[in-house]
Amino acid sequence: MFAPLLYFNDMKELKDRILSDGVALEGGILKVDSFINHQMDPQLMMNIAREFVRRFEAHTIDKIITIEASGIAPAILVGYILNKPVLFVKKSVPSTMSDMICTEVFSFTKNRSYTVSVSRKYISAGEKLLFIDDFLANGNAAKGVAEIVSKAGATLVGMGFIIEKGFQQGRKTLAHLDLQIESLAIIESLDNCQIKIR
Amino acid sequence: MFAPLLYFNDMKELKDRILSDGVALEGGILKVDSFINHQMDPQLMMNIAREFVRRFEAHTIDKIITIEASGIAPAILVGYILNKPVLFVKKSVPSTMSDMICTEVFSFTKNRSYTVSVSRKYISAGEKLLFIDDFLANGNAAKGVAEIVSKAGATLVGMGFIIEKGFQQGRKTLAHLDLQIESLAIIESLDNCQIKIR
Repeated sequence: MFAPLLYFNDMKELKDRILSDGVALEGGILKVDSFINHQMDPQLMMNIAREFVRRFEAHTIDKIITIEASGIAPAILVGYILNKPVLFVKKSVPSTMSDMICTEVFSFTKNRSYTVSVSRKYISAGEKLLFIDDFLANGNAAKGVAEIVSKAGATLVGMGFIIEKGFQQGRKTLAHLDLQIESLAIIESLDNCQIKIR
Repeated sequence: MFAPLLYFNDMKELKDRILSDGVALEGGILKVDSFINHQMDPQLMMNIAREFVRRFEAHTIDKIITIEASGIAPAILVGYILNKPVLFVKKSVPSTMSDMICTEVFSFTKNRSYTVSVSRKYISAGEKLLFIDDFLANGNAAKGVAEIVSKAGATLVGMGFIIEKGFQQGRKTLAHLDLQIESLAIIESLDNCQIKIR
């Protein structure tokens, strides 16, 4: 018998792309803005979405949740494949919206806190949500989303990230949630501006 | 002979959804945040993307351009169908990016100007871009994107909007660009908080 090779995907395409087109800068910065989070490669993004769907296939998922802006592209494609709605958390509190669930997120990049929010209408008690985002670094944005989901009485079934900075604290920050966390490429180190992928 | 009915699409699905799930508020505000720009329906979004592709099929398109955050979902799907990269304009000037093309956009909703920016690397002179966004209202964001594309020496081949507020100034604001502008649903009036679609 053969292993189901068609379904096997170690995301070599993504890792190769990070090594060829990613840029490591001083201070642990990884720029992937040529194909992930400014300019985007839609075919790669669809393959990323397919892999997220595969990794979380054991779960019942009612809705995808993400955070603007870079999470929206992978999230809408996961939602398309699963035929489930996609909700994006706003990095502000819109003046035209009321009855928002809010929480504070500290950004190390910007060295300040900001409020993220979701309309209470779109998360129901008991719903099962899958969180999708582009980066897991310190995990603060993901922690904020988990707080929002918890405040709504809903449940996160997992978190999927395109790229994890394995040398930062994200996994530890999220460990108390006791969730399936999947990162499609884990960066081991950006020391000396060299990208090393686990 | 039969007309190619399969390819005929007047976006009745979108218009019906706006009438059933959209909410008109005082002051000409149309809320579609249950299926377009907070919570999103990915199947509807894919049909929207297919219709954009159909309406602009006469053009050569090298790249899709949009503006964060609500334009990203329809834009990535258009890019997926056309197999072309998608670039999203940022509503700020990121601290980690240099050599940005910037312009000022006035927001009537927020009653202030903000800077939008794109990395110069991702728009080349001579490139043909299609702009996709969720709303055409006053047209200021779209005008800003047109300025950025022009500064880069590239060309816009068209602009596609999911919803146009036909009673606002967007078409006039953009008329000088002499472009194909397509809106999939044109709101004629929101008077007395009643949604009328042309």
